[in-house]
Amino acid sequence: MKFARKDLRMTRMRMRMRMVATILLWMAAWPVLATDAQATDALASDVRAADALPSWNDGASKRAIVAFVEKVTTQGSSDFVPASERIAVFDNDGTLWAEKPVPFELYFTSDRIRALAPQHPEWKTTEPYRSVIANDTKGVAAAGKQGVMEMLAATHAGMSTDEFNRIVGEWITTARHPQTGKPYPQMIYQPMLELLEYVRSKGFKTYIVSGGGQEFMRAWTERVYGIPPGQVIGSNGELEYRLVDGKPTLVKLAKVALIDDGPGKPVGIQRFIGRRPIFAFGNSDGDRQMLEWTTAGSGPRFAGLVHHTDSKREYAYDRKDALAKLDKAWDQAMQQGWTVVDMSKEWKVVYPATP
Amino acid sequence: MKFARKDLRMTRMRMRMRMVATILLWMAAWPVLATDAQATDALASDVRAADALPSWNDGASKRAIVAFVEKVTTQGSSDFVPASERIAVFDNDGTLWAEKPVPFELYFTSDRIRALAPQHPEWKTTEPYRSVIANDTKGVAAAGKQGVMEMLAATHAGMSTDEFNRIVGEWITTARHPQTGKPYPQMIYQPMLELLEYVRSKGFKTYIVSGGGQEFMRAWTERVYGIPPGQVIGSNGELEYRLVDGKPTLVKLAKVALIDDGPGKPVGIQRFIGRRPIFAFGNSDGDRQMLEWTTAGSGPRFAGLVHHTDSKREYAYDRKDALAKLDKAWDQAMQQGWTVVDMSKEWKVVYPATP
Repeated sequence: MKFARKDLRMTRMRMRMRMVATILLWMAAWPVLATDAQATDALASDVRAADALPSWNDGASKRAIVAFVEKVTTQGSSDFVPASERIAVFDNDGTLWAEKPVPFELYFTSDRIRALAPQHPEWKTTEPYRSVIANDTKGVAAAGKQGVMEMLAATHAGMSTDEFNRIVGEWITTARHPQTGKPYPQMIYQPMLELLEYVRSKGFKTYIVSGGGQEFMRAWTERVYGIPPGQVIGSNGELEYRLVDGKPTLVKLAKVALIDDGPGKPVGIQRFIGRRPIFAFGNSDGDRQMLEWTTAGSGPRFAGLVHHTDSKREYAYDRKDALAKLDKAWDQAMQQGWTVVDMSKEWKVVYPATP
Repeated sequence: MKFARKDLRMTRMRMRMRMVATILLWMAAWPVLATDAQATDALASDVRAADALPSWNDGASKRAIVAFVEKVTTQGSSDFVPASERIAVFDNDGTLWAEKPVPFELYFTSDRIRALAPQHPEWKTTEPYRSVIANDTKGVAAAGKQGVMEMLAATHAGMSTDEFNRIVGEWITTARHPQTGKPYPQMIYQPMLELLEYVRSKGFKTYIVSGGGQEFMRAWTERVYGIPPGQVIGSNGELEYRLVDGKPTLVKLAKVALIDDGPGKPVGIQRFIGRRPIFAFGNSDGDRQMLEWTTAGSGPRFAGLVHHTDSKREYAYDRKDALAKLDKAWDQAMQQGWTVVDMSKEWKVVYPATP
């Protein structure tokens, strides 16, 4: 029986060994599986990198953007830029979202005038309010720049910053574009949204530098673009700190502090960021100085312009547009080799897919 | 031999089993070891957290700070604040670094006046320049606020932002404090430096909100406090964008854009950050409205004041100080339960160890 017992023991041992071997095999496989998973991740990351701009056709602009971002973020490259200096600035109207037939903030303004009209019976007979209330476009246009400034003051000032933020937040979720019927946050440019995310994934800090109202944009840019209020620079008015019914309040005054357009853009950049960007994107003459200031710094610099060539999917306008001319900036782009994006050819889609 | 062979096989099997068992034991031990390592890490992290403020004695202020930071950063806590809203603001002079006998920017100003004097022979007979050049403190004091504004204009304007940045950067590394003989960046407060790092490690974004010159501070705050230019809000002047010899230039004008002191601090916060802080630290009446604005928000809020009680290691001043009075802010702190740091009792050290 000794023999048999020994055989039995051997059988048991063999079974144990087989079990152990199986466990060992599994355990040994873990690192391989883990490595495989990592390899898959790395591969996915490569695919993601190559595909960080899926809505961009493989054209000159996409290649210029990727080449720039790669060279300034590659350790050891002579063009390497440390993360703290990777500042990217973007105009908003016409660069990150549409701006036709008029900049969307003007729709907010006229919607507010209509909402406030019952409290202002005198507006029925006062221009430009009468025209706005009567939907008389020609009448509004006739009011000119002075009329616009008056309307901005009437709708953007004389309330607290908290109150204004609430009003804009409500409007942006409910209002619809008169031509597309879309909510305005769905008229952002999908390719530019991808660009924002792409450069952020490469350590850039993204800023909006826009002629639009700073507080108007800040009410929704974080949700829509992932850009927090402190990285949104726009035209802004003076504020006054006071106690209202004992409550600390910041009141928006009808006095301009900064017109963040044209030569005001480098001023806004210096005042708010305090560092020269290395990457800038705009679409009109109002962005010319921003791109000029950006590219005049030493080291690698990128300047891009969105050229609106797409009357079918969006709008087509450039040199002769009344509100957002691309004329001097176009000439400078040609001279200095700035990247010009042909929207109709280089963008696969314009707006994000409807949710 | 069959028997013997079986015995041999058994011995081999036993040896293999022993080896396998040893390997298994090691492999089985890995997760335990890993868990141990994690436990050790967690322990170290606890120790680090407890020790994130090693220069603070275990007093009321340290406990209030840590309790606040813990509660707003603990997931699931009813006081939890998402990272994007963890805004912490700090005054600079007297809060992050010393400010006696006069704010250090005034030493920069007088040093600049002396450096520029050869180009301004008329200064020899014009106040307040004559007094500055002659080191006549009484004469400078007699010039009053108007004199200070004139000197600031003469030394802070009329040059490009790049040039000013270079001048300040040079000064801050070479100038010495008249009483301690230390370079000014060594007169920052070690406990506050730890506080900045502690809240940043907990996902806070740290800002300076100071009455001092914005461009003056930005030349060195990133190196000294780890706070980049875009998170430094100070008094600032108008800028003008122009081409100088064909080169895009931002010229500092002698025209004030914002006095970032007193009620100007909430204005600066809204303009630059666009979000109400949840944590604020100051040391004088100039910070009162900043702390008031911070604590008037809903949800958990922290307001702290550095009380200068340390005539031996630093300076002692409060209600009756001519330049940095802690009077109304003190009363409000008592009423509203703001944290007041008794420097002499709560800080183990004041300045960083000399490198």
